[in-house]
Amino acid sequence: MRAIVFDGRLKLTGDRQKPVPARGEALIRVAMAGICNTDIEITRGYLGFRGTIGHEFTGIVEKQGGRSGRLVGKRVVGEINCGCGVCGLCLGGLEKHCPDRTTIGILGREGAFAEYMTLPVRNLHEIPDGLSDEEAVFTEPLAAALEILEQVRIGPSDTVLILGDGKLGILCALVLKLTGARLTLAGKHPAKLGIARDQGVPVILAKDLPPGGKFDVVVEATGSAEAFETAMKLTGPRGIIVLKSTVAHGAPINLAPLVIDEITVVGSRCGPFKPALKALARGLVNVRPLISAVFPAGEAKKAFAAARRRDTLKVLLDFRK
Amino acid sequence: MRAIVFDGRLKLTGDRQKPVPARGEALIRVAMAGICNTDIEITRGYLGFRGTIGHEFTGIVEKQGGRSGRLVGKRVVGEINCGCGVCGLCLGGLEKHCPDRTTIGILGREGAFAEYMTLPVRNLHEIPDGLSDEEAVFTEPLAAALEILEQVRIGPSDTVLILGDGKLGILCALVLKLTGARLTLAGKHPAKLGIARDQGVPVILAKDLPPGGKFDVVVEATGSAEAFETAMKLTGPRGIIVLKSTVAHGAPINLAPLVIDEITVVGSRCGPFKPALKALARGLVNVRPLISAVFPAGEAKKAFAAARRRDTLKVLLDFRK
Repeated sequence: MRAIVFDGRLKLTGDRQKPVPARGEALIRVAMAGICNTDIEITRGYLGFRGTIGHEFTGIVEKQGGRSGRLVGKRVVGEINCGCGVCGLCLGGLEKHCPDRTTIGILGREGAFAEYMTLPVRNLHEIPDGLSDEEAVFTEPLAAALEILEQVRIGPSDTVLILGDGKLGILCALVLKLTGARLTLAGKHPAKLGIARDQGVPVILAKDLPPGGKFDVVVEATGSAEAFETAMKLTGPRGIIVLKSTVAHGAPINLAPLVIDEITVVGSRCGPFKPALKALARGLVNVRPLISAVFPAGEAKKAFAAARRRDTLKVLLDFRK
Repeated sequence: MRAIVFDGRLKLTGDRQKPVPARGEALIRVAMAGICNTDIEITRGYLGFRGTIGHEFTGIVEKQGGRSGRLVGKRVVGEINCGCGVCGLCLGGLEKHCPDRTTIGILGREGAFAEYMTLPVRNLHEIPDGLSDEEAVFTEPLAAALEILEQVRIGPSDTVLILGDGKLGILCALVLKLTGARLTLAGKHPAKLGIARDQGVPVILAKDLPPGGKFDVVVEATGSAEAFETAMKLTGPRGIIVLKSTVAHGAPINLAPLVIDEITVVGSRCGPFKPALKALARGLVNVRPLISAVFPAGEAKKAFAAARRRDTLKVLLDFRK
């Protein structure tokens, strides 16, 4: 079968074996997949991953272990972390933090940029009727944005700044808008900011941010290590920085402002799929304007080249073509 | 009057004017003062402070503005931050975060290493009978340790690692011991660790920390920028790093582990005086073993030289002599 593989170089191969689902797993025929910045980082060596990359997908279940088979023929999305299932973290519902976890296309498990993939049945969520694959493929990144609300109480009386007008920054802004908080999305790209502004998010060019401005909550979603200093400057005393960017390199950072202003930094990763699917199905968040391009899977290299461009938001790969 | 002044160089002068208390302030005759690492940092240029340094003190109120004069003749300690009193932070009880605040001996206000000082009456707390000046002078740093408990819920089921066997690290350990949490204090100095061990705190040499060890809470109190990476490594998923060190320089730090493990970092500064005085008066925390030396104020230079030595804990200055 076809798959997009990173083995030191990014390549499209046609000779991958169709995977065989293990006990408790489903075999999924991938329909639509999304290219995430993490995929691009992996092609630069992040985490040393080798194999089929990709973790944002929709697909149709072809086979399902166990007796019920209730998902066969259904459209699904899938949570990307697979825990051991027996450690304290897994039993506490924190599979994504299991020390022995695998993560599709990122850590020890084949990814979603392939015609077929396998995933534990418990990771799968059926896509509601009426929600297109092009939208449902945003479930994973939208869940990552929703994770902020699992971790930090944000309400209408809070002032919130989101730094970064990439895919994640915009999704965070669209999600945090639902809280009624007084939002600002800051970025470098007028066209990208425009997408959030069109959905009612107040936006500003990062260079125009008032230097003395102080926010209750600052979400760092730029993907740049240097932005953390900016986030510290713009967070008020006893404020909160939500850190969403995983940056592979370290910048010199003076953390003293965290102590002086008693700022809390909350690292925030993957999030809950159910509310993300609901938000999409109910139209609370419109992700369609974030789609910059859709490529047939056979044009993977072109798709990655497009995804790496600064003016691009989400690039999708269609494995049905 | 005599005062210990930093004007680019540290000096003991005899020609400072005795201060005149402003409205709402008290005139305090300083008795005992403690040298903090922040004082030493200031003599290296930290925050650009110029003037009388020092912020840990006990003293006797000689004059008090207002009608009651209830504190005249009483022994007192004093909170070190003076807010504007009218901004939202001050009105919300967060004077220490007032953007227009002064802080004695640190920011825009003459410090405590002098025969006399002034401070708003509302900053003062009477020292309970039976508590010596040598102990009461620890109120300020002990309050800073107690601040952790104002910010983070720590209980008997938590595992807590304190990094740093300096004054602050030991005080944090002695305070956190009161929670019943499973503690470990890690440091580099067997003699300093011994002081905590003698009060029932399990201790370990930092080099012997198990590399894969994971704690629910890690308190970073080393005063070294590099220790933050160690703290990240030793904090479990969804764990908390309490950052107590204000380090003036920045080390290159890769913050990705905060995101991957969804760690929360809580910056923690000054704390509440009332519980600190109570803990001292009730003997919950024994600070006496932390006193490395007491110098007459006239031997300020010797005192600072002693305080800068790695094997020293608290050095006190006696202004009554």
